Amino acid sequence: MGGDFGPRITVPAALDALRRHPSLNILLVGHQQQILPLLKHCDSALRVRIELLHAETVVAMNERPTFALRRRQDSSMYMALQSVAQGRAQACVSAGNTGALMVLGRGILQMLPGIDRPAITSTVPTAAGHCHMLDLGANVDCSAEHLLQFAIMGSVMLRAVERIESPTVALLNIGAEEIKGNEQVKLASRLLTERTGLNYIGFIEGDGVFSGEADLVVCDGFVGNIALKSSEGLARLISCKVRQSFSRNLYRRLLALLARPLIRELQQQLDPGLHNGASLLGLQGIVVKSHGGANHDCFGYAIDKAVAEAEMNIPERISKQLEHYLYPPIAPE
Amino acid sequence: MGGDFGPRITVPAALDALRRHPSLNILLVGHQQQILPLLKHCDSALRVRIELLHAETVVAMNERPTFALRRRQDSSMYMALQSVAQGRAQACVSAGNTGALMVLGRGILQMLPGIDRPAITSTVPTAAGHCHMLDLGANVDCSAEHLLQFAIMGSVMLRAVERIESPTVALLNIGAEEIKGNEQVKLASRLLTERTGLNYIGFIEGDGVFSGEADLVVCDGFVGNIALKSSEGLARLISCKVRQSFSRNLYRRLLALLARPLIRELQQQLDPGLHNGASLLGLQGIVVKSHGGANHDCFGYAIDKAVAEAEMNIPERISKQLEHYLYPPIAPE
Repeated sequence: MGGDFGPRITVPAALDALRRHPSLNILLVGHQQQILPLLKHCDSALRVRIELLHAETVVAMNERPTFALRRRQDSSMYMALQSVAQGRAQACVSAGNTGALMVLGRGILQMLPGIDRPAITSTVPTAAGHCHMLDLGANVDCSAEHLLQFAIMGSVMLRAVERIESPTVALLNIGAEEIKGNEQVKLASRLLTERTGLNYIGFIEGDGVFSGEADLVVCDGFVGNIALKSSEGLARLISCKVRQSFSRNLYRRLLALLARPLIRELQQQLDPGLHNGASLLGLQGIVVKSHGGANHDCFGYAIDKAVAEAEMNIPERISKQLEHYLYPPIAPE
Repeated sequence: MGGDFGPRITVPAALDALRRHPSLNILLVGHQQQILPLLKHCDSALRVRIELLHAETVVAMNERPTFALRRRQDSSMYMALQSVAQGRAQACVSAGNTGALMVLGRGILQMLPGIDRPAITSTVPTAAGHCHMLDLGANVDCSAEHLLQFAIMGSVMLRAVERIESPTVALLNIGAEEIKGNEQVKLASRLLTERTGLNYIGFIEGDGVFSGEADLVVCDGFVGNIALKSSEGLARLISCKVRQSFSRNLYRRLLALLARPLIRELQQQLDPGLHNGASLLGLQGIVVKSHGGANHDCFGYAIDKAVAEAEMNIPERISKQLEHYLYPPIAPE
């Protein structure tokens, strides 16, 4: 029900996901009066793989998360997460209120033992392809210990989903030298250096994220959110200037016509929608957050991400490997 | 002496600045053996407007700022700042170690009364032209009170240098709603709302910086530095993809040739060098930091910025208006 467009986008995207993933079944959680009309013309082979769970209310985009947890037990978000907690679904995908999704996720699914807070992770385009970054906004204040937990969760996920044997981990900082940064980042760097199981490569600066210096970039949620949104903002500004520049006169408009396949190719390569679907790591269940403004295709990527995580059973993997990382075996002298 | 290229860039840029600003005089502070050869072919009308102050050492780029303050009193940076403190120069421009410049600036020039910490500010391109952002890396941890001081200093500077009557001020945050953000940001928002003299418009997100939602964007130095460097990183990634895309085949290389004026125009519009020259606000003197990698032209922009601030006597203006802002007159009921 969430996001800027609600079921109008999420239901058709769900139907397409069923076509892409033959073993997938989908539980649509929301108001039946809005959902049923969208399933009317759905072919019967797909229809049997869909269940509908009616929810009377929705969590509003500006609702306080704690209010949603206490008072919105009949909301689509609450009931979708509950269906994961009850084992009725293996993953939850939502385009709704991020803060509420996190607080409800934490309240309903519970944290993995040894993890204090969930973290939001997503892929970011780089020169080499893409990297993962976390946290992207779940936690506005993080201790060094939290950053360490993020690094462990991210590494386990990258190993499973991206099949990178030993993902490189970096801490986002305002300089590469050891003396740079705030206390949390400096202490986190020391903790990460001591963890023999992690492939920690040190600090990287903001621009290092996009040059692909690390497979996993760890930061607190305040910084991560602002880094990502700022760069999206500049990318949008550039694209706007390009459009203006190409439409200045007839010659340039002709040039734009000739360059259209090239421009489209670039847009595809750099489309933030391709990276839609942020995972909430650290919960005892899989939750993927779609961008609120996602269109049909982009919401589909978020579903694909949830499918991949469910196939790899990410929460169980994190849980199993956590103890090993938090208390590394003593290396022989 | 500082930056990636030292006097090879800074001296010719200084000579050009003398040509642009007929009433300017320049004091070159550094090792005479490196500087004198660069002045050999300088025409005599310019040469009389240059003084040379010999400094035996330099502050290294990775030197600890506190070490530089205690042990590098014969360095070019120390002596340049000292010449400002002594009134021998009205402003100092450096491409050297930022941390050292800040700590030395604070130690040698002293803070303005009522200001706890210097803040680094610079312009950022926006859809509307540009905005100013601070702090960009001087302070890794900031209290709400510090953020308020930054807002005041920035507003005074914008009013003087940019001649904006009532500059709009926003706080950088992870959401526009009041409940979003960390404690410092929430408290700073309350403090800013109470200051009647400031045109505070509330929170903006990372992408709002580049869409030009505010004239002045206030944040702590850790966040500001990472936001700026991240967006620069993404811009570089985009420009690299564009180059790759235009060189893929003969047809596209031809297209690139046709589009060259357009591409050059875009590069000029978005050139981060245009925004070179970050001011250290809050000191009892003018200090402008150039990017270490600045070329001749870009270092020139940093000098121009210092000239503009000296003409406007920014530190004195901040000092005068500070009391008014910190203790606003009580408005009639």
